[in-house]
Order: sequence, then C-alpha cells, then structure tokens
Amino acid sequence: MPEIRQNIITRQSVIIATERAQRPDEFSREQKRRQTLPPYLASCPFCPGNEAMTPTETFRLPAAKGPWAVRAFPNKFAVLSSQGELKRTTKGIRRTISGVGIHEVIVETPLHSNNLALMSDAEVGLVIEAYLRRYHAVLEDPRVEQVTLFKNHGPQAGTSLEHPHSQLIATPIIPSEVRERLETALQFYDDNGRCIFCTTLQDERADGARLVAENQHFIAFLPFAALSPFHLWIFPTRHCASFGCLEEAEVPSLARILRRVLRKLYDGLNDPDYNFVIRTAPQESEQVRYYHWYLSVVPRVTQTAGFELGSGMFINTALPEDSARFLQSATVD
Amino acid sequence: MPEIRQNIITRQSVIIATERAQRPDEFSREQKRRQTLPPYLASCPFCPGNEAMTPTETFRLPAAKGPWAVRAFPNKFAVLSSQGELKRTTKGIRRTISGVGIHEVIVETPLHSNNLALMSDAEVGLVIEAYLRRYHAVLEDPRVEQVTLFKNHGPQAGTSLEHPHSQLIATPIIPSEVRERLETALQFYDDNGRCIFCTTLQDERADGARLVAENQHFIAFLPFAALSPFHLWIFPTRHCASFGCLEEAEVPSLARILRRVLRKLYDGLNDPDYNFVIRTAPQESEQVRYYHWYLSVVPRVTQTAGFELGSGMFINTALPEDSARFLQSATVD
Repeated sequence: MPEIRQNIITRQSVIIATERAQRPDEFSREQKRRQTLPPYLASCPFCPGNEAMTPTETFRLPAAKGPWAVRAFPNKFAVLSSQGELKRTTKGIRRTISGVGIHEVIVETPLHSNNLALMSDAEVGLVIEAYLRRYHAVLEDPRVEQVTLFKNHGPQAGTSLEHPHSQLIATPIIPSEVRERLETALQFYDDNGRCIFCTTLQDERADGARLVAENQHFIAFLPFAALSPFHLWIFPTRHCASFGCLEEAEVPSLARILRRVLRKLYDGLNDPDYNFVIRTAPQESEQVRYYHWYLSVVPRVTQTAGFELGSGMFINTALPEDSARFLQSATVD
Repeated sequence: MPEIRQNIITRQSVIIATERAQRPDEFSREQKRRQTLPPYLASCPFCPGNEAMTPTETFRLPAAKGPWAVRAFPNKFAVLSSQGELKRTTKGIRRTISGVGIHEVIVETPLHSNNLALMSDAEVGLVIEAYLRRYHAVLEDPRVEQVTLFKNHGPQAGTSLEHPHSQLIATPIIPSEVRERLETALQFYDDNGRCIFCTTLQDERADGARLVAENQHFIAFLPFAALSPFHLWIFPTRHCASFGCLEEAEVPSLARILRRVLRKLYDGLNDPDYNFVIRTAPQESEQVRYYHWYLSVVPRVTQTAGFELGSGMFINTALPEDSARFLQSATVD
C-alpha cells in the first residue's frame, strides 16, 4: 500500500510509491564520469593559469602548494546586474523589480578532475570557508535581501561546466517560498514553543531509520517525506536561523559531514548528478528564534513530470528508509 | 539590465536573465522524433490489439473507423491504490495518509506514431471529452479531494512511453500548493472585488505582447513572469473555478486552441518534450467565486538547477515577449 507523507517544515506532500519501488542501486549511473576527465584543460576558464579568462577575482584562499586553493569572482554570465538601482514598478498585473544583485562563482579546487566527494576534509573546509566569507561580504550591499549558495553537479543538475564550482546568488527580494517557510516555522513556534527544525532533528535522532551521518555539530538524514530518492538534509545541531552564524570552529564539522555524504553518494550511485543548496533566513530575519538554517542535497536520479508541476506534490519511487540504509552501509572514512 | 518579474497568481518570482538571453530557435531540438516512430508496435501495451496487456478499461470512445478513438484504464504501475480506507496518522513529526486514490492512463489515439500537435481538432476534442468524463467519474469516489490531469511528452518531461497518452491522478488530499493558490486568489478577490485570473486575462489582452492564440472560449498566452522559455497558459474566458464546469459546447474550442499551441511548439521547436497540466479547484471549492481553472503548458527545453531548488525563484533565459512573438509567427491552421 502506497502512502502519502507530509513534510511539516516545507508542507510538501510526497507519494511514496511502493508499488513502483526501485532498489537503491537501480538509481546508480552506469559509469563514473571522473575517469574521463583530465586534471587540467587549457580551454577551461576555471583551471590555474587561465585566471585572466574570468572577471576580476573577489576572493582567494591561498594553497600551501600550487597557485591557490579556492577562488571567487563574478559570474561572467551573471543573471543579476551588480550595477544599478533597485526599483519596483507595478503596471496592471505586471510587477517588476530591477534585476540588481550579485552572482558569483566559487571555484572549489585548481584540479579540473577533482570532486568534493574525493577531496580531503581540510580541502572541503576551505570551500565552506569561502562560502562563509562571501556570504558575509555580499550582505554588505544594502540592495541584498537574500543569499542563496548552491552547487550544480552534472548536466541533469543544470551545469555543463565540469570544473568543480559552486555559485552564490544574492537577490534584492525575499522569494515567496522563503516567506512561506518562515511563516510555517513561526506558526509552529507559536503553537509549540519550540523550533520546528530542532523538533525534527530530535525526532529523527530518536527514530534513527533515516540517519546517514552525524558528528559534533551536524546531522545528516533523509527527511521522512523525502521528495525524491536520496534527497538529504544536513542540519546544524546548534539552533540558529542564519548560515552567517556558522562559527570558524564548526567549519571542519560541516566540511566533514558534507564530504562523507557526497562520498557515500559517489560510491553508492557512481557519481550521480546532484544539486545542493544552503537554506538560510533572509538578512532581516537573521535573529529570529523560530528559523534554523540547513543544507539540502538533491541527487538528480529521477525526472519530475506533469503531476509534480501541476499539483506541487511529489512521487518518490524509493522508500526513504531503504535509501538511508543503503547509504548507511556505504562505508567511508 | 535583467529584471525580476513576479507572477501575481502564483507569487513565484523569475529572473529574466537578459544577459544570457537565447534566441527562440536556440531551444529547438535537433531532430523531430516522430520520423523514427512506427505506426504500430507489437510490444506496445497502448497499441490496438494489445488491449489485454492493460488493466480493465474504465472508458472508451468509439471511432468511425478503427478499433477505438480514446481509451482509459487504471495505470498498471499506479502510484495510489484504488482499494483501502483513508487513514491519517501522526507520530511525532511524521504525518502520513494512506495512499489511496485513482491513477489512470488515457490513451489519446490508436496510432503509435501520432502526436496531439498533428491530430485534427475533432480528434483532440475526443481526448478532452475523455478528460472531462473521467474527471466527473473519479469524483464519485468519496475519498477523492483533488484531480490532476496531465500529460508528459518525451523523456525530459518524465515519460519513456512513446504511445501518446495522458494521465489522471486523484488524490485524497488537497496539496498545500493548491491551498496556497486558493488563498492568494481569495485575498485578491477580497481586496479588489474581482477574480485575479479574469483580471490577468483582461490585462494580457490589452497588452497583447504575450498573446499566442485566441478563440471564442479560450485565450493562450505566455505569463508576464513565465518561469521558463515558452511556458504557456490557456485560460477559459468564461469564469469558473473548476474544470468540471467545462461545457460540451466549449470542448471544440479548447481542443482547437490546445492543438494550435502544441502545433506551434512542434513546428517552431522541432517537437520539444513538454508537460501540460489542468489546474482546477478541488471538489470542495468547485463553487467558489475567486478561483478560475486553467491549463498550463511547460516545454522542457531548459534544466532547473540549485538556485531554483533552493530559493523557489526561477531563471528564464528568454524574454517572454520574444518567445510569444516567435510562436505568433509560427502559422498553423
């Protein structure tokens, strides 16, 4: 018998289609892509030596050996303009806001063929440090209301550039979906006197069936109502609304759990395409007690279709507990 | 300068990324798939003669010539179970509803290589008639709260079955996204004393820049804040909350505008993958004055990525007015 599960944080419902259920390893890619990538590509704008091919660098972390460890710069094909004033216009039903904001690329490694899943904890830590530094830096711009940090890995996840990189988009508005999430969290806080995320964390820990990894400051699990196979959340155990409150001492823990989760996916599913994204409160709500930042990982192993587009509900052909067990059994250091 | 547009009906925001803007014909497929499809396939469960390969038929429209015109039957791999009681359970954060409901396939034509875009208005009319009849029929089931009718065309749209077919999923819950849309529409109605959809229709008609087709009962246009290239809406001009209020006399008009829109996409973009879906009020709200049913067409010519997943905002690399002009110039009968 299939079941419909509702996520209390996002309010999204998902049909866990047990009749169609696929074995975890059926979502595996046929071949690892890395085997075919060269360590350096003369035409790649993100490879060392080609720095002049990118816009002016905004940030760099040096490396003990080699040219640099991590670099950030404006996206050459930025979706928002760094110049210009913020203007809102309304004309009939047409609401427009000028497309000002910041769109940066964060190159994670000088090595073209590298992969977050294969890097050391310390190397991933430098990437997280770059995220944090750029997050704080772009919020200096008074036009910015919300910062989204994300990574697209592979064509199914929306990127054609192979060289490992993440992106940051700082928008002059708070997206309506973010507002809705804040409202749901506030409602729960008012009704129950506690954070909906901390409650989820506690419940997932007590249950244990969907846990994938855990360390001093973070916990990784499949949500009870995972939207798709291997859809994962990484929560900080210390309650805080904003990614900006991440402390230097916590960076190695986040790097470690992220790297372990990605490695489990890499080994278990043969380097699947995936997105991850940091969900954080907008700047104006950084201090609220009812919200809690987190990181969401979405392997792109299935395709959403008309039903999802038309209802906002999802169909997951894998039981989250099965996916979790599969990832638990993938042993990584 | 890019701009951010907000859809007042869905509240979704989209960055119209003019710096990245692609010419309409850049979204075209390289080759039409139809050229490679046979008219009949012995292994296809939807081809005539193979009716025994499908579950028991629930509906059939006869054809003047040939075995039948349209058939409906339960999906062999139904995501919801037609048997069983509706039960809700809550355990900690875990909200579950038993996965009961109806999941049907509607085969649109006996001809394996056919395509809605290439059928006659009358043939498409029979498909719409089947939608309407099955819509009313499944609502007889007291467990059903919401009906979603949709079509997936091509692998990027989530189907691997070539034989033209649509689907119907009747769920025992109203998805939260549908509830949110109803709330937005109600708010607008209370604030302005009129329907948000009728207002949009009026405004789009007055503007004209995004209109694609129009007839006695329907109008097709790209929303001002189209989420992706060629994202289209077809609105009935007669105000009504539910698809169920579509009258027999209006079926030919809907068939004609849908066929014309799909043909323009077929000719202009070389038979792109697409989804379409009918957005209707749930049964309990069929009589409300503030909602208005419509049909949404989403060609799958680009890939959503981490930013969309993480913010709920979209990036559209085509100006909706350019996409509309391109479709306007594709002449079909």
